[in-house]
Amino acid sequence: MPATLSPITADELATIRRDYRAASLLPKRAYHDPAILAWEQANILRRDWVMVARDEDAPDPGTYTLVELEGESIIVARGRDGALRAFFNVCRHRGTPVAEEACGKVVRFQCPYHAWIYDLDGSLIRAKHTDELEDFSFERFGLAPVRLETWQGFVFLNLDPEAIPLAAQLGDLFEHWDRFDFGALRSAKRVEYDVAANWKFVAENYSECYHCPGVHPQLNKLTPYDLGGDFDPDGAWQGGWMELVETAETMSLGDGSAGAAAHGSTNGRPSMRGITAVDERRVYYYLLWPMAFISIHPDYLLVHRLVPQGPDRTLVICDWLFEPGTIAAPGFDPSDAVAFWDLTNRQDWHVCELQQRGTRSSSWVAGRFTTQEASVHAFDEMVADRYAGDATWSKRIVRATPAPDGAERGAIAGESAAARDRLGARAKATAGG
Amino acid sequence: MPATLSPITADELATIRRDYRAASLLPKRAYHDPAILAWEQANILRRDWVMVARDEDAPDPGTYTLVELEGESIIVARGRDGALRAFFNVCRHRGTPVAEEACGKVVRFQCPYHAWIYDLDGSLIRAKHTDELEDFSFERFGLAPVRLETWQGFVFLNLDPEAIPLAAQLGDLFEHWDRFDFGALRSAKRVEYDVAANWKFVAENYSECYHCPGVHPQLNKLTPYDLGGDFDPDGAWQGGWMELVETAETMSLGDGSAGAAAHGSTNGRPSMRGITAVDERRVYYYLLWPMAFISIHPDYLLVHRLVPQGPDRTLVICDWLFEPGTIAAPGFDPSDAVAFWDLTNRQDWHVCELQQRGTRSSSWVAGRFTTQEASVHAFDEMVADRYAGDATWSKRIVRATPAPDGAERGAIAGESAAARDRLGARAKATAGG
Amino acid sequence: MPATLSPITADELATIRRDYRAASLLPKRAYHDPAILAWEQANILRRDWVMVARDEDAPDPGTYTLVELEGESIIVARGRDGALRAFFNVCRHRGTPVAEEACGKVVRFQCPYHAWIYDLDGSLIRAKHTDELEDFSFERFGLAPVRLETWQGFVFLNLDPEAIPLAAQLGDLFEHWDRFDFGALRSAKRVEYDVAANWKFVAENYSECYHCPGVHPQLNKLTPYDLGGDFDPDGAWQGGWMELVETAETMSLGDGSAGAAAHGSTNGRPSMRGITAVDERRVYYYLLWPMAFISIHPDYLLVHRLVPQGPDRTLVICDWLFEPGTIAAPGFDPSDAVAFWDLTNRQDWHVCELQQRGTRSSSWVAGRFTTQEASVHAFDEMVADRYAGDATWSKRIVRATPAPDGAERGAIAGESAAARDRLGARAKATAGG
Repeated sequence: MPATLSPITADELATIRRDYRAASLLPKRAYHDPAILAWEQANILRRDWVMVARDEDAPDPGTYTLVELEGESIIVARGRDGALRAFFNVCRHRGTPVAEEACGKVVRFQCPYHAWIYDLDGSLIRAKHTDELEDFSFERFGLAPVRLETWQGFVFLNLDPEAIPLAAQLGDLFEHWDRFDFGALRSAKRVEYDVAANWKFVAENYSECYHCPGVHPQLNKLTPYDLGGDFDPDGAWQGGWMELVETAETMSLGDGSAGAAAHGSTNGRPSMRGITAVDERRVYYYLLWPMAFISIHPDYLLVHRLVPQGPDRTLVICDWLFEPGTIAAPGFDPSDAVAFWDLTNRQDWHVCELQQRGTRSSSWVAGRFTTQEASVHAFDEMVADRYAGDATWSKRIVRATPAPDGAERGAIAGESAAARDRLGARAKATAGG
Repeated sequence: MPATLSPITADELATIRRDYRAASLLPKRAYHDPAILAWEQANILRRDWVMVARDEDAPDPGTYTLVELEGESIIVARGRDGALRAFFNVCRHRGTPVAEEACGKVVRFQCPYHAWIYDLDGSLIRAKHTDELEDFSFERFGLAPVRLETWQGFVFLNLDPEAIPLAAQLGDLFEHWDRFDFGALRSAKRVEYDVAANWKFVAENYSECYHCPGVHPQLNKLTPYDLGGDFDPDGAWQGGWMELVETAETMSLGDGSAGAAAHGSTNGRPSMRGITAVDERRVYYYLLWPMAFISIHPDYLLVHRLVPQGPDRTLVICDWLFEPGTIAAPGFDPSDAVAFWDLTNRQDWHVCELQQRGTRSSSWVAGRFTTQEASVHAFDEMVADRYAGDATWSKRIVRATPAPDGAERGAIAGESAAARDRLGARAKATAGG
Repeated sequence: MPATLSPITADELATIRRDYRAASLLPKRAYHDPAILAWEQANILRRDWVMVARDEDAPDPGTYTLVELEGESIIVARGRDGALRAFFNVCRHRGTPVAEEACGKVVRFQCPYHAWIYDLDGSLIRAKHTDELEDFSFERFGLAPVRLETWQGFVFLNLDPEAIPLAAQLGDLFEHWDRFDFGALRSAKRVEYDVAANWKFVAENYSECYHCPGVHPQLNKLTPYDLGGDFDPDGAWQGGWMELVETAETMSLGDGSAGAAAHGSTNGRPSMRGITAVDERRVYYYLLWPMAFISIHPDYLLVHRLVPQGPDRTLVICDWLFEPGTIAAPGFDPSDAVAFWDLTNRQDWHVCELQQRGTRSSSWVAGRFTTQEASVHAFDEMVADRYAGDATWSKRIVRATPAPDGAERGAIAGESAAARDRLGARAKATAGG
């Protein structure tokens, strides 16, 4: 990974890299300049591990799903050997995509233009009228591979052949989630949102609840904005939790009418495997660098993936995942959880879109963080670290050192507000993620 | 106002700055090049006074209207003290617009994202969780102000804190309109037009009636294209008048059918305050730099405001203003005046749009002015003066000298074609504006 | 024609300029980079002869048609003397198009803005209020002319006043078509297609039938993909033929149902003038540089014209031309020929559009030519020659030498696969164009 000049100045970096009480947001153009998005695409989306799918999207040998990453159409296919692999969806002859359907089950991939045929492992197995060509062999003209790793059922791709392993990027998150087993979860609902805001505004919005009393009255009833805490990660992630009020079991929408389920009820859904008694009183919020959010509820997982479409536009793909047994149970109905987060999502996109418009103003200079926004500052620092290429987690990635020992991780995973305060220089607020 | 290099060459400037009989139009790229529009936006729309609204748009304490200027959303609000003020509609925290509705009445402005609160005078009066911040105070985080002045009921903004006063920009127009009192007028109708032409083509079109016989048969019946005269301004404006034919009282549409009002009838509307017997036989056309047109009819004011959307696209906002007493009178119906100018506007936009397409041709070089287009030349000279930053009126602005004495103004306001000829070097044609 | 630097590198040129068995396609950015399209527009579409219309589009004195070429609106008008001429559709005064309707019959052209009048030969004959202008005369302000030539009923324009004659560009194609007389043909049907692919992908697609078995099952039944041959042109064209199977008379669609016409039937249409017994067993495919395709069937001519709209978008205008006598015959119905090619066109555009998307991938590098794609290589060499400005046909154009003698041409026009092999260095495959 060669050094690439930061897209913002040393002074701008310094303004972010202060204690949050003295720091400012990223500079305005980080949210508006197409050149900065291009930098992020070339240096983040084409270099770091990006979550793109779930194992379940290609469950059986011969099944595949097409994934879009950075404008690339990529085939994620399961081979006859059961292994999941990824390839650029591009015929090596005249560049036509070899798979047209978004997903399916095939014996092999045949290019629709000149009928070249590739096996499930990407190797070229037929190309007529090539016998006389010079400097040509089937071995050298297979589909171009893309690096793929899976963890907790999530599929990650990396377009950089030189990148470090996924585990080195996510750092201690692997151990931090040791008690969970999300590999078998299935999506019961997907909603896609076209949000007219920069992806970092969406991530900042996810990182604080200072806006909750005004923007999310329904959410604020279940998890008051000032009850919770943050983790201190050693890896490319941020996370924290919020406390459920005594009457709430999860995040779900109840309209309070007679006979209807209560606001915050699981409607009888059991907790997921690995959820502890402590976990049952919390909702956890994790931001996985660069642009995935995973929110752990006692009974379901909410997953957001961001796909930048421009400096001022982001596709957000949102999935609600449940245990297969929960989905299979008679009368399973996720609509209370879906309605809760669909409402909350739309409330968030509205203020993000307002912010995108407002911050275009020539009058706006990067504002300040309140004591409820230390996690926003932590996210902006991650961005700044990546811009500069010199921060703790990115250095860690570059060195690809093993994650610290389990004992230390346990301390982090089970920390209290007091414990966090001891973690030092990068002070965190008590607000939930 | 620092010197900014002209966006056109010295040779191109020289080609415009000849007697109109030897001069050519602005060079082709002035109408097509996005870089020249960007220059105009930075050096004209962000530096000169621009008409954006009417006093009536925020009539009472606590009322406000949102105005768009150069992509900026600006709040024009009337304070409890009755004063009209303007602010950037941008929260100083994370940049969200604090006002979402286009207009309204409020006690104060509350940001919809994190609920920071600003008073009607822009001062910050609430921002929770900011107590511990370093280098922060409410005094320094009020809404950013924009300069505002009003004249004859029109609201002007200026984005340049260093700009000279409005009176210095408009020069002798203030005295020239001394007899009028347009402050109380109210808009009875607004129509917005999306015109696929450069704003300067629209302004040139407004500046001559050489096209009237072919393009505007209905107008040409009421004010023949070759009867009228021009003023010789000392300020950033152009103006002239056309003579109404004997049977006409104003510009209004009559279809000539039995029982219908006559073409050119006021339909009983009285003259506006300040209109003299001479004025009742004329329609006056004023172009206020940079992009407002005010057309004075005996019984109403027609106001065009141009808002460039691109080199080849201009939003035109058109209002028909009447005396409040006229509007309140039983049976008031402005539709004859609206129909007349809506028809005439659309005829104009059609030829402007054709011209925009035609002048893209590689074959086109700036054409010549006929003796009916001296006012077009005068407008193009204003543009050239602003490009060069060295012309009479812009020098006058820089010096901010007081307007010449009233006697001289009177001579200008009441001039004849003969008088105008004496004004010398910048000869004007006899064609109406 | 001054030298213009090639838009691709010397190494890239060298990779194309090998024997097709060792060569690669044009580099990826030739199909995607707006700068390369801009180069092509400036150096090909504004310098070479481009087919734009048919003689029949302005058949009588005073008739005209508007043609778009490189964003220019051009009037093609027939004068009172019967001559066809071309002018930029731009008034010399303020740049308005003088003709608004796409075609028509007029006595003269009157500008819709200020009513300047031009004769059918482009000369200015009225412009009021210009008497006093300096340095102005009607003679110097006529409509700007564009070079025009016709051949076989096709109208070609050239925006470069310095260009060599059409005959020098097309080289031996004139003699090669000596036996034909297409001047009187009339279009019975036009279909326009908006294709989301680079114009060169469309041209490459036209140049090979390697894709026919999979993409065009209906076509492959009438002209099997591996029966045919190519010509070896001395001029800016490529061409070849495919053999009709014994049961086929032309390219036409039959659905095989009882009572319906057979697939490949002419439905009784006679052969065109000049078609020989040999020609009746063939379909000929000609690509006329830069972007017209003419496909000669025994009973009709199929003409494609490409109009680039962007690097990834091409307008394709497709005409079906027949002998006037055939059109006039009772019961004339071209729908079998139209249906055949409309289906085939859409099959082609689909794979071209897939290819456009696939080749955007960062993973794709220019692929290889199979032994069925020598004609694609020949087309890519034409492009490379034009990029480099040094190739055989363009050198020939620069020298503007007369076409070689008829005997040599006859040898080419009547060649066999064996004859072609003797033509040497630039070996061709046996696949049809």
